Amino acid sequence: MSSLTLALDAMGGDRGPAVVVAALSRALHSFPNVHFILIGDANELKPLLQQEKLFEHPRITLEHTDEVIEMTDKPGQCLRSKPKASMRIAIEAVADNRAQACVSAGNTGALMAIAYLKLKTIPGVIRPALVAPLPNQAGGQSFLLDLGANPVCDSDTLFQFGVMGSVLAREVAGIENPKVALLNMGEEEIKGHDTVRHAGQQLKASSHINYIGFIEGNDIFSGRADVIVCDGFSGNVALKSCEGMARLLFDNLQKSIKGHWLSRGLAWLLYKRFKKSWEWLNPDQYNGASLLGLRGVVMKSHGNASANAYFSAIRQAVAEASTQLPERIHDRVEAVLLDDK
Amino acid sequence: MSSLTLALDAMGGDRGPAVVVAALSRALHSFPNVHFILIGDANELKPLLQQEKLFEHPRITLEHTDEVIEMTDKPGQCLRSKPKASMRIAIEAVADNRAQACVSAGNTGALMAIAYLKLKTIPGVIRPALVAPLPNQAGGQSFLLDLGANPVCDSDTLFQFGVMGSVLAREVAGIENPKVALLNMGEEEIKGHDTVRHAGQQLKASSHINYIGFIEGNDIFSGRADVIVCDGFSGNVALKSCEGMARLLFDNLQKSIKGHWLSRGLAWLLYKRFKKSWEWLNPDQYNGASLLGLRGVVMKSHGNASANAYFSAIRQAVAEASTQLPERIHDRVEAVLLDDK
Repeated sequence: MSSLTLALDAMGGDRGPAVVVAALSRALHSFPNVHFILIGDANELKPLLQQEKLFEHPRITLEHTDEVIEMTDKPGQCLRSKPKASMRIAIEAVADNRAQACVSAGNTGALMAIAYLKLKTIPGVIRPALVAPLPNQAGGQSFLLDLGANPVCDSDTLFQFGVMGSVLAREVAGIENPKVALLNMGEEEIKGHDTVRHAGQQLKASSHINYIGFIEGNDIFSGRADVIVCDGFSGNVALKSCEGMARLLFDNLQKSIKGHWLSRGLAWLLYKRFKKSWEWLNPDQYNGASLLGLRGVVMKSHGNASANAYFSAIRQAVAEASTQLPERIHDRVEAVLLDDK
Repeated sequence: MSSLTLALDAMGGDRGPAVVVAALSRALHSFPNVHFILIGDANELKPLLQQEKLFEHPRITLEHTDEVIEMTDKPGQCLRSKPKASMRIAIEAVADNRAQACVSAGNTGALMAIAYLKLKTIPGVIRPALVAPLPNQAGGQSFLLDLGANPVCDSDTLFQFGVMGSVLAREVAGIENPKVALLNMGEEEIKGHDTVRHAGQQLKASSHINYIGFIEGNDIFSGRADVIVCDGFSGNVALKSCEGMARLLFDNLQKSIKGHWLSRGLAWLLYKRFKKSWEWLNPDQYNGASLLGLRGVVMKSHGNASANAYFSAIRQAVAEASTQLPERIHDRVEAVLLDDK
């Protein structure tokens, strides 16, 4: 892997910059060829770096700013009112070629707005998509897009999400011929609305895509598809619904274990086994949603990510930057557009 | 409760008429004032009724037909090609006032198409909605609509779903002032697309609705809202995603219990406790999705419902018919429309 530089927005996450510095410490060890630009309030960051024995580390450039985009800030307003926000500087580092990727745990709407404005889309790409890898039952990962960047999508946009998701699954997850599916309310071709049906026809007709048809919400984690395409509204609803249901089941299971002396006594054993069986679903393992289709790698970490979770987002950003994902997407989109002519 | 008649489509479910007859046996006992019209192939039904000692029961009218709508039939085609289908006769019994409600475990699309054609919507109602009661963590039930009858909805339709769902929650679940929410991809008022935001404004402005704002997918089972409104595409995706996640977690938990000699030995105990803690989420308990907004009660049972699940659908139909739900919806929709003038 050749030398890379990542820009990290140290501010804006729910847990503050300590999490980012701890993740950075792990990343310096795991990625010996990667440089990091750490952007945020130097008064907060210096002591944290000193604690982690990273102050004046040769592969860290500290860039001070005291402007932070808050979770409550409106995306459009930040653009005008906070020109020196840490998130914006991180994105501009990518736009200016000082970094090949950036990571932020801040306000998603602001991240999308600034990234869209500063990085622009790859030629031919209609809209960038927010995509995340999800663990699946088959032991691999599936990519779900869009997760909320585009509440409403036309069929051309959904088709392009299939193309871009396919490149991501191949380049980053190493899946040879990724199976692409559209999320729908039934598997039959007549199901759903005009947009999803038309996107299905477009994907089916394309020689660039291994399209397997419609899947339903209960197949998101099954591994039937490597890439699952939907509009941002449905994707967000699906993911949040799954998260809610998982949390509900875990909470109730815990209660049920605690409710009996025998099971309570065995709780440690159960918990251990249970936890092990669920490692593949641990959100820390798959933190990091990327904005696909931009002229640079932009990685969104969960707002309340732990250090391990933020590290996963860094790892994902390194993977996308080192495979030159934006260039790969550019090539594929160009090929698809040429075919259509 | 005054005397009611229910029309049961005995055919069309995945498990055949035996399930329906077993459910009917339980229903005769539970609802001593309800008459049942049992519609289907008499050659199959007679032996089943004899087995259950229900043949020539005074509260059962057996209506023979050998036409059945299959799961693979296209809704539009059934209307022309199968005029004597058991499902259609059941709906026509309601349209002709021979029954106050009908129940079917058959093809959902066909049920909606025939019910819409034969029963028509209540005056002022734009579209009927498919709605199901879901158990919630607060120990009650929440109603989610639409579940797939209307893949795309405008804001007026979503608003009406809020009105109709509110009547359902009050009349059938006895919730005094039902909390109505819109499913969205965030809780802030700026989130989502124009349609959901506009529907939010309409619901907020109405004095007929206890509107609490947007909720996300992870709140579907939390009990924060008694009525959760969305378009049929999102509703279907949300419900299927939850089902898929629940199944996934149960499967993996089972594997994890079986994987260890100690936990395997204790599996019976765990399973018992676990099952008990999950009774509120047992699909058998909340089977039955109704088509709201029609001039009659139409209840859809899961296709693969067990006898207990089919019984739940009958119970739900009895509840809606005995509270004269269509009339209550009619009154409320009329009041809302008058207010708008």
